[in-house]
Amino acid sequence: MRDIEPQEIAKRVWVEGQISEVLQRYGFRMMEPTPIEHLDTLEAKSGPQIREEIYWFADKAGRNLGLRFDLTVGMARMVANRLDLPEPIKLCAIADSWRYDEPQFARYRHFRQWDAEIFGTTDPLADAEAICVGMDALENVGLREYEVRINNRRLVEAFLRKIGVETRAQIDSALITIDKLSRLPPTQITEEFGKSGLSGEQIEAVKELCSLRGSPEKVLSELARLFREDTNVETARNELIRLADVLKSFGRRDRCIYDLSVVRGIGYYDGIVYEAYDKGGEDIGSIFGGGRYDKLCAIYGKRDIPATGVAGGIERIMISLERSSIYPKLRETPRVFVASATTDVLFEAWEVVARLRKTGVATDFDLKERSLEKQLEYANSMRIPYVVIIGRRELERGFAKLRDMQSRKEKEIRIDDIQKEL
Amino acid sequence: MRDIEPQEIAKRVWVEGQISEVLQRYGFRMMEPTPIEHLDTLEAKSGPQIREEIYWFADKAGRNLGLRFDLTVGMARMVANRLDLPEPIKLCAIADSWRYDEPQFARYRHFRQWDAEIFGTTDPLADAEAICVGMDALENVGLREYEVRINNRRLVEAFLRKIGVETRAQIDSALITIDKLSRLPPTQITEEFGKSGLSGEQIEAVKELCSLRGSPEKVLSELARLFREDTNVETARNELIRLADVLKSFGRRDRCIYDLSVVRGIGYYDGIVYEAYDKGGEDIGSIFGGGRYDKLCAIYGKRDIPATGVAGGIERIMISLERSSIYPKLRETPRVFVASATTDVLFEAWEVVARLRKTGVATDFDLKERSLEKQLEYANSMRIPYVVIIGRRELERGFAKLRDMQSRKEKEIRIDDIQKEL
Repeated sequence: MRDIEPQEIAKRVWVEGQISEVLQRYGFRMMEPTPIEHLDTLEAKSGPQIREEIYWFADKAGRNLGLRFDLTVGMARMVANRLDLPEPIKLCAIADSWRYDEPQFARYRHFRQWDAEIFGTTDPLADAEAICVGMDALENVGLREYEVRINNRRLVEAFLRKIGVETRAQIDSALITIDKLSRLPPTQITEEFGKSGLSGEQIEAVKELCSLRGSPEKVLSELARLFREDTNVETARNELIRLADVLKSFGRRDRCIYDLSVVRGIGYYDGIVYEAYDKGGEDIGSIFGGGRYDKLCAIYGKRDIPATGVAGGIERIMISLERSSIYPKLRETPRVFVASATTDVLFEAWEVVARLRKTGVATDFDLKERSLEKQLEYANSMRIPYVVIIGRRELERGFAKLRDMQSRKEKEIRIDDIQKEL
Repeated sequence: MRDIEPQEIAKRVWVEGQISEVLQRYGFRMMEPTPIEHLDTLEAKSGPQIREEIYWFADKAGRNLGLRFDLTVGMARMVANRLDLPEPIKLCAIADSWRYDEPQFARYRHFRQWDAEIFGTTDPLADAEAICVGMDALENVGLREYEVRINNRRLVEAFLRKIGVETRAQIDSALITIDKLSRLPPTQITEEFGKSGLSGEQIEAVKELCSLRGSPEKVLSELARLFREDTNVETARNELIRLADVLKSFGRRDRCIYDLSVVRGIGYYDGIVYEAYDKGGEDIGSIFGGGRYDKLCAIYGKRDIPATGVAGGIERIMISLERSSIYPKLRETPRVFVASATTDVLFEAWEVVARLRKTGVATDFDLKERSLEKQLEYANSMRIPYVVIIGRRELERGFAKLRDMQSRKEKEIRIDDIQKEL
């Protein structure tokens, strides 16, 4: 784990503020699920192997608890137990999550995520809404060179069934291998498919399907050609048609491609899924991702409610911004430092400090009673742009010196006017 | 543990924003220590009994880890290992902490704190700075009816030594009992002091000292009368004199009282300590508190550096604000809902949604293709103030209806002018 230093916090606060503004603009209401969940809840859909990837422990009452590994599970668990909320329910969160991974580039054990979820409708309209909020989140921090890759797990599942991959276990393990298509060498992929019980012919068919990639129009017409009669595939394909139509109304279809290899790693997804990548930043991993999980809520509670959602890592966005150098100028030091020329004006200097702060000016001063030279050195090392120097002689006339630390120019100003001059 | 609901988050975001503004105004730089610390770090000064009060566990590598119980320990551990930071070091944080307590009124297992720390000076000037940032934090959220009760642990310790309570263990356990003075019945207090090995006479002397309470001037002159020659007491008393002088320069002395019974519960404090209470809200507990811990950093690392700091619970402030009903009006729902009168204008309605959002207006719409009546019901249940109704006839002329949900009045407006009308 790591401490987050002031320079990074200043950036994080800015990024989260920009994303929060977008979430509000889309009508999502901010909440925060508890950071500590029952281990059962965390395992519900992802299975007990999730234990290996998270922080979990028994509390003093002997209950197994775990730190949340994402925000989706907690939001779904909450909504599933709340019969009072009118549908659709649009919730969002920006908060911490923890994974017990080997720390590696762009993956931390403690990280922050933004997350927006829509409960209560199976319409791809909601998926489009989630995809657009993701796009606007990126654009509102200044990332415009991205690509969203969309697919429908239902389509891939229907295809697997169609070619004879039929048991739940086989389908699930095939999906896990598909998720690794771009990351593992072809021989290893073939081996993994083989372990799931797929024949050579089936493997080729899956690989061919997953190589379909391009504009929604192109992929949809290709799919129309490939699957003319299969009604299961047809339903899944219709969802992608509807999605493309809605994205067009929202003026966003051009930023999306349909990519049949995208299935997402997490087990709870069961419909439209997508991942966004910062162009030229594939090594960072997906910069947001999400999808539909219509069957998750039923596992958690009283309310069987369809759901879809999108989430992204704050740290990954920050890495992308760092690379593209598009952060705005962020100030994380005070605007002015009040220095005292001699120790006999300390009390008066403190009064000036209190007055400036009262008017809302970020003001610092010397807590160590150092010489004027040392005070200026400190202000300089903190990159504080202005220093007010309180001296006995000027003070008697109600004046002080104002020093611009960049130009090193000094001028006399009325103490009452300091605020105006900054 | 509990989920934080949208209404509460909206308030929390506001409160934290107000406090964050004050922290910046005072020149504190925001950081965040890691949420998971080595158990050793958490136990360093508080002792192994802290295990009973926190969440801790062994990770897969067999290391004992714990969730932070405050922000001070992590900030001190970080500063103690950073030789590069120029002194004084003023850091702050607003973040989560966890305690494994029985949940009770105004105390949660997962809570948020704001925290401001000053490293690098023993001067009570720094303690005054910390106290003032606490006061301004309260005032900036609108809490003006508070009292800050200040003491010096060094003074109480010097007094204990003077009356013959001399071992470290005796002094520590006497301080723990003093911290409970206002909460436990007198017989139990006497019993606890007795267990620490204090004689009846010593107990009376301690109780008398701790009953000293009043304006700084009054308490200081009383102390001058009581301890004329003792140099240890004198040093501690001089710190309180200096503190009162600085608080006066800052224009804040009138909001403080000196109260010799205040010693704080946490083991790491070793100088000036204080607690603030919302008037009439003593049941909430202290609304901020802090003090000096000059010897903590040396335990953690390479840098033996004096320190003082202040912290407060966000939830406690929120309870106080709720009671005094001084929250500003906070909007956590969208400003406008775009309804479609019939299903043949859906695509056009979505275009209006996208346009409004693009200009930054928080906009929601129907994700379920419901009737106009149902859409209005939903917008009403979400307390959205305006509904734009897109109808085929008006649309052809470039118009829509704007409905004020409170007055229930409708008027026709140009679609291009919607934003201006909201």
